[in-house]
Amino acid sequence: MRLDVVTIFPEYLEPLNVSLVGKARARGQLDVRVHDLRSWTHDRHNTVDDTPYGGGPGMVMKTEPWGDALDSVLADGYETGSGEPALIVPTPSGRPFTQELAVRLSERPWLIFTPARYEGIDRRVVDEYATRMPVYEVSIGDYVLAGGEAAVLVVTEAVARLLPGVLGNAESHRDDSFAPGAMAGLLEGPVYTKPPRWRDREIPDVLLSGHHGKIARWRRDEALRRTTAHRPDLIERCAPGAFDKKDREMLSILGWAPDPAGEPYGRFWRRTDGVEE
Amino acid sequence: MRLDVVTIFPEYLEPLNVSLVGKARARGQLDVRVHDLRSWTHDRHNTVDDTPYGGGPGMVMKTEPWGDALDSVLADGYETGSGEPALIVPTPSGRPFTQELAVRLSERPWLIFTPARYEGIDRRVVDEYATRMPVYEVSIGDYVLAGGEAAVLVVTEAVARLLPGVLGNAESHRDDSFAPGAMAGLLEGPVYTKPPRWRDREIPDVLLSGHHGKIARWRRDEALRRTTAHRPDLIERCAPGAFDKKDREMLSILGWAPDPAGEPYGRFWRRTDGVEE
Repeated sequence: MRLDVVTIFPEYLEPLNVSLVGKARARGQLDVRVHDLRSWTHDRHNTVDDTPYGGGPGMVMKTEPWGDALDSVLADGYETGSGEPALIVPTPSGRPFTQELAVRLSERPWLIFTPARYEGIDRRVVDEYATRMPVYEVSIGDYVLAGGEAAVLVVTEAVARLLPGVLGNAESHRDDSFAPGAMAGLLEGPVYTKPPRWRDREIPDVLLSGHHGKIARWRRDEALRRTTAHRPDLIERCAPGAFDKKDREMLSILGWAPDPAGEPYGRFWRRTDGVEE
Repeated sequence: MRLDVVTIFPEYLEPLNVSLVGKARARGQLDVRVHDLRSWTHDRHNTVDDTPYGGGPGMVMKTEPWGDALDSVLADGYETGSGEPALIVPTPSGRPFTQELAVRLSERPWLIFTPARYEGIDRRVVDEYATRMPVYEVSIGDYVLAGGEAAVLVVTEAVARLLPGVLGNAESHRDDSFAPGAMAGLLEGPVYTKPPRWRDREIPDVLLSGHHGKIARWRRDEALRRTTAHRPDLIERCAPGAFDKKDREMLSILGWAPDPAGEPYGRFWRRTDGVEE
């Protein structure tokens, strides 16, 4: 997979040399190229921004440097047979970046990232390239960053770890929160390793029982406990068929019940104790 | 504000030397200290992980290095009068990190981050320090990363830009997506800057009209258009009083109507055209 990043802070992308992404690059599984947007400016101040049309605070990134940069990156990629490109535009106004989208992006041969600063990039840049390739405007969460570079690191890491052969043995997809499988839709509960006693704190007995069924049930109960506490929105959306009899007993203990009236709203469960955060 | 980060990949935190956070450090507004967790291991392989109790794939980070590291960081901070610490634990099992939480964290004097790798940290570490200070287990979004370091960059940047004097003139809080104010709850629409014509693409006429009222209305309509397209969940949750008559006309054109039945579910608006993504 080829990744291009155009940015005014190339040094922000240093983490792409580290850990999982760094190792995938070293093995040749990822071809990462970071470009300085200012290389495509033509004035001696290397200007990349100007005041917004219509007034208001902040600055807007100009069309020309972005257009020239993207043309140059695209010309290189087409010449070297990098496959069909897709443009990833990190922006708080985007659609939410999810694990599902990470999976879809991991199947593409070539991603080009355009992390912006200030109030964002002149809209005409996205409009122009959207006529030539898929454009994904994505938001990594409901908070405001100083620029899109941190989002590039997040998306890159989420995508790279899904590429075949990238994840080592110490890591695993299987029980990931947000991954498909037995725990689909639930957060993972607590984990423990040696020693069995640390600062007067012991691990739960069940984990030493050797009883696989009981351990699996305990983990599932802990996942339900944590998900109801931290992410009630995830429980609400779980289809009734997602839970077996033991799950339902645990949910009842935790103060949750089926909510038939919520179905048109995609809400299948509700708190029965009236507690709302 | 003081920030400590304990990690097995200190070099991943290099972006904390760059841009807004780097400048705030240079000005003395932020005191950032990155620590290598392996400094607190005592075997010659610098072991930080072991197999999970109860079996299963992946590795769990051990209590001792984390406990020794946090004790050492805390001792230093108390000695140098860093104020009341709070522990930030990035984990996919956490509560969602939001702009509201960024604001609350920005009011604290001292944040300690514990980004994990593998399947996470032995639960007893959080249990132990939760008896001594506030602990925020946070998730930056519904996707899986290789480790918590990218989340530390995200949280740090979201918090740092809220500190007094950190944000320069080229940037602004005022119209931020997710910020309070006229656009509260809505995504920002498109922005434009010079030249007025680029590759046969012209800016919208209204932005050259000089008519402040019309420009404000256009921006609001574009924000409604983008929010309904990219984040229907945000529109659904907008209280009926959040919209004036013109907003309601625009929402009607976009295919949205009030939904009195949705009130118990916090859903005040619904699509009338039956389109669900």
